Amino acid sequence: MFQKLTIFGPGLLGGSLGLAVKSRKLAKHVTVWARRPEAITDAVKRGVANDGFLDAATAVKDADFVVLATTIGVMETIARDIAPHVKAETIVTDVGSVKYPVVTALEHVLDGKARFIGSHPMAGSEESGVNAAQTNLFDGATCILTPTDNSDKDALMKVAAFWEAIGMKVRTLPPSDHDEVVAQVSHLPHLVSAALMNYACQTGKSSLDFCGNGFRDTTRIAAGPAEMWKEICMVNRDELRRALDGLIEELGVARQMLENKDEVSLLAFLRRAKSLREEMKFRGP
Amino acid sequence: MFQKLTIFGPGLLGGSLGLAVKSRKLAKHVTVWARRPEAITDAVKRGVANDGFLDAATAVKDADFVVLATTIGVMETIARDIAPHVKAETIVTDVGSVKYPVVTALEHVLDGKARFIGSHPMAGSEESGVNAAQTNLFDGATCILTPTDNSDKDALMKVAAFWEAIGMKVRTLPPSDHDEVVAQVSHLPHLVSAALMNYACQTGKSSLDFCGNGFRDTTRIAAGPAEMWKEICMVNRDELRRALDGLIEELGVARQMLENKDEVSLLAFLRRAKSLREEMKFRGP
Repeated sequence: MFQKLTIFGPGLLGGSLGLAVKSRKLAKHVTVWARRPEAITDAVKRGVANDGFLDAATAVKDADFVVLATTIGVMETIARDIAPHVKAETIVTDVGSVKYPVVTALEHVLDGKARFIGSHPMAGSEESGVNAAQTNLFDGATCILTPTDNSDKDALMKVAAFWEAIGMKVRTLPPSDHDEVVAQVSHLPHLVSAALMNYACQTGKSSLDFCGNGFRDTTRIAAGPAEMWKEICMVNRDELRRALDGLIEELGVARQMLENKDEVSLLAFLRRAKSLREEMKFRGP
Repeated sequence: MFQKLTIFGPGLLGGSLGLAVKSRKLAKHVTVWARRPEAITDAVKRGVANDGFLDAATAVKDADFVVLATTIGVMETIARDIAPHVKAETIVTDVGSVKYPVVTALEHVLDGKARFIGSHPMAGSEESGVNAAQTNLFDGATCILTPTDNSDKDALMKVAAFWEAIGMKVRTLPPSDHDEVVAQVSHLPHLVSAALMNYACQTGKSSLDFCGNGFRDTTRIAAGPAEMWKEICMVNRDELRRALDGLIEELGVARQMLENKDEVSLLAFLRRAKSLREEMKFRGP
């Protein structure tokens, strides 16, 4: 499908991507770029890539597809580093969890230098690092592409086909709509999960002895990489604040039902959630 | 261990209990009581019990151990029904998710009639009904016993030994402490999970197309039986309101960090949650 794929940042996502590309033979050659030499050695050892470089220009030499799988904060710098060294037809995408600021910056930096399409493969786990990488991390998960009026149509098709070939369901959304939706279904749940965890241990850790599977599932994502989530929350903070306000209001309504002993409304609230959750189950993955 | 165990309510919990008791040979004979004849037929067919009765008095005849695995709301009525038909040494326990009101009522009704010990096996899933019953539902999970000054020490020991033989880790808490803790680690997460689900679909179901594993896990328990959870929330509503207030405050603090672009505090908040969640993981199950 591609001659040479260069992955920037062989962590959980970038590493899994390399494994998936190699197992499905979607690129003849996979190169990684990392900040630390050990990360390159590990990635090559794990079979994520054929080789790797610390120098961005060398890493993208002859690449026809480049995936930025680093944290959001360094993507713009990397894009500036590679801009003079990629070809105009090279396709560049990213895996950032926030799209409007990333897409705006990268479209600007890569304008005329490469064909950029924003991607958000919604895969991951609370683990991180290349050692947690899995070939099937993307199977059945959703990838949101965020094309704009500036996007090259052919590049968009190719990026969509790539994520589909990896096993993902591809959807498209404008970057700002993406950020609003993921604030609600990803960033908000993360903060809530962390808040539940912190609140349960507010007066000590003894509550940990009394946690069942429900609490475990609800708080699983709170174990995710704190630095990365801090960055995501900060970059998407306007949408996330709106989502927090919305949820706090929703919780206030539930609280009022308890206060009023309003069993009918509470049952309707729980039934609505159950029915939505069951519908989600049917939609897979 | 016991000669005859009678389980009231062969649903997910009662059914799994019967399967576990039979597979571990913890009672020579298992009887179920249910409101509907089909429920008894199904339970016997699934191997949950040797037989079953619609009449409470018949069901508890010669039982040395009785487990009330119905919804909380009918436990007191059942206790009244069986009180004249059990022996003074018969041990009665329940599986209710709220303990203070249940223990208070059942201790009163069974006073001098049987030896009552409150139990809360923290096992379950979002499934319900005897067809979802599993032999290993209790494996490694926590069971909280809530003895009081009125509790018979020998009965307490036997109930603890029973849940341990089923594979559970047994802890004890006074009934009101139990209700405070589970409000935070079980009932609150349930309401939050439902609120996240409802809020994400506030303006339609299109968000469902963009949900990843994080959202799936955080909202899994929202698919639990609405009637049962409505009852639990209502019965424990004072503690649950306090817990909701606490969480709303915690979320407000996080919101303020975003507002103030306070990255240091947000990182500390996320790191604390991550470290607590990882500690919980080490504690099993």
